[in-house]
Amino acid sequence: MNMPQLYGGIEAGGTKFICVVARGPGHIVEEIRFSTTTPEETLGKAVQFFRPFVSSGQVSAIGVGAFGPLDLNPESSTYGFIASTPKPHWSNTDVDGTLQRGLNVPIAIDTDVNAAGLGESVWGASNGFDPSLYLTIGTGIGGGYIKDGKPLLGLLTPEMGHIRIPHNRELDPFNGSCPFHGDCFEGLASGPAIEKRLGLTGADVPEKDAFWDIEADYIASALMNYILVLSPKKIILGGGVMQRQFLFAKIRRRVHELLNGYVSDKNVLENIEDYIVPPGLGNQSGSLGAIALAMQIDATNKDRQG
Amino acid sequence: MNMPQLYGGIEAGGTKFICVVARGPGHIVEEIRFSTTTPEETLGKAVQFFRPFVSSGQVSAIGVGAFGPLDLNPESSTYGFIASTPKPHWSNTDVDGTLQRGLNVPIAIDTDVNAAGLGESVWGASNGFDPSLYLTIGTGIGGGYIKDGKPLLGLLTPEMGHIRIPHNRELDPFNGSCPFHGDCFEGLASGPAIEKRLGLTGADVPEKDAFWDIEADYIASALMNYILVLSPKKIILGGGVMQRQFLFAKIRRRVHELLNGYVSDKNVLENIEDYIVPPGLGNQSGSLGAIALAMQIDATNKDRQG
Repeated sequence: MNMPQLYGGIEAGGTKFICVVARGPGHIVEEIRFSTTTPEETLGKAVQFFRPFVSSGQVSAIGVGAFGPLDLNPESSTYGFIASTPKPHWSNTDVDGTLQRGLNVPIAIDTDVNAAGLGESVWGASNGFDPSLYLTIGTGIGGGYIKDGKPLLGLLTPEMGHIRIPHNRELDPFNGSCPFHGDCFEGLASGPAIEKRLGLTGADVPEKDAFWDIEADYIASALMNYILVLSPKKIILGGGVMQRQFLFAKIRRRVHELLNGYVSDKNVLENIEDYIVPPGLGNQSGSLGAIALAMQIDATNKDRQG
Repeated sequence: MNMPQLYGGIEAGGTKFICVVARGPGHIVEEIRFSTTTPEETLGKAVQFFRPFVSSGQVSAIGVGAFGPLDLNPESSTYGFIASTPKPHWSNTDVDGTLQRGLNVPIAIDTDVNAAGLGESVWGASNGFDPSLYLTIGTGIGGGYIKDGKPLLGLLTPEMGHIRIPHNRELDPFNGSCPFHGDCFEGLASGPAIEKRLGLTGADVPEKDAFWDIEADYIASALMNYILVLSPKKIILGGGVMQRQFLFAKIRRRVHELLNGYVSDKNVLENIEDYIVPPGLGNQSGSLGAIALAMQIDATNKDRQG
């Protein structure tokens, strides 16, 4: 009897790890969640979780969407490492190699947002729309751009959350919370920026607070830049801040105003509700995206073997 | 006797057309330049110029880098048209079809900046660096992003010159010159923006004028955004404004300051003189880029024919 082919996926967050064995959104066979402690303990638990599936031959590749900064330069001797990070114990951790040695299957590693973007493009809201952009607005701000079915990789992992946008100092004298750039997009609009400015978390700021128009303006400015530079066919907004659903309408309206008719495509101008949308996979974009990474590396390896 | 294979290239500008028959930078066989008048006359001259080379079988494909807005959606019924443009006579001009019917060879059409970026990546300053970004800062501001050897194409032609960047209203109260967005990047930093603000063309503003630090700040802000979003391995700055060579040092210094160590790649941090550079092909990026487009479509067609 043939057992169905399955894949392993790890959403490796700075707070918690989610490991799944699956072959798609409706086919999650097993899932485990645990806190991110030391690399030894955390990666050890992951190896332990996957080992039986690997031993039985059901899982032949594992994908990882990891917090960063990640070294994804294929020519680097520290490829697949988490580089220097303020998170205790995790600087210079060889995530790729540790899993590889522990399980002896191909590991595909990418950033958490690239994995989530890929998951959305394979099974979620951006399925059938290429290129697409997945943006998370939460503790940090990061984006995953999927083009020709793959996350964009250039000189370095794109860090599009840190772009410079106009800062409305008149209405919003807050200096920004980014330790590197002060009032970059993340420094103005992330969850910690909201909390530092207002003394309340984004979840607690009342819907009628005038601040939300400023927040929507910052997000819309950044989206305008991504649209003009990357020309995505779908934009997905996820993350903690975007749990406030009323933000979507404010952001769409402001993007429309800012573009001011410049972009002639009717998807942007007339159907903006279908253009800027929440994740189709809810909070599973990341873990299912890791499954999609595993499927891609498995297919590539099988192609090579003829 | 075999005649060497040649290609046709058209740099189709709003002011002038440059047509070349060539197979690379050292091998330009013939070149003609003429003013852009009506589509009939201008495209007619181009057809006339290329006809003998096509008839003799020496030229079997022609590339075009054109002013815009261009419709490059392959599913559109007006693919290869110049769409609605303020330039008299040129709105809704079927550039692709007119050349195709006049010469009966495959035509590859793209934006002027995408062609220039491609030319630079094949023979110029970004050769061997993929992805790369070519930015022109002149009458307008536009960018061509080359990834995997091809210009990026998404929902629409990217219009990265119109991104939103911080506007230093204190030192620079000018409202911006963009009819769509006021103080977007192009509205603040293009040639016309300089002239409207100072009453002098960029060529005439003295090098010691404090304005150049503001200009460099705007350009550096935009470059920072492109770096964080697109992660190019080389950035080329061309166009009229960049003829003021001293701007390069100011821009590089300011990009370095703005990134503030965030990007850990040593190419950016330590060798920024080799990262942000002038075009390697001088003023031939566009026409040679059109030749590169022709070579690409020719190779694709030959592949298809087996």
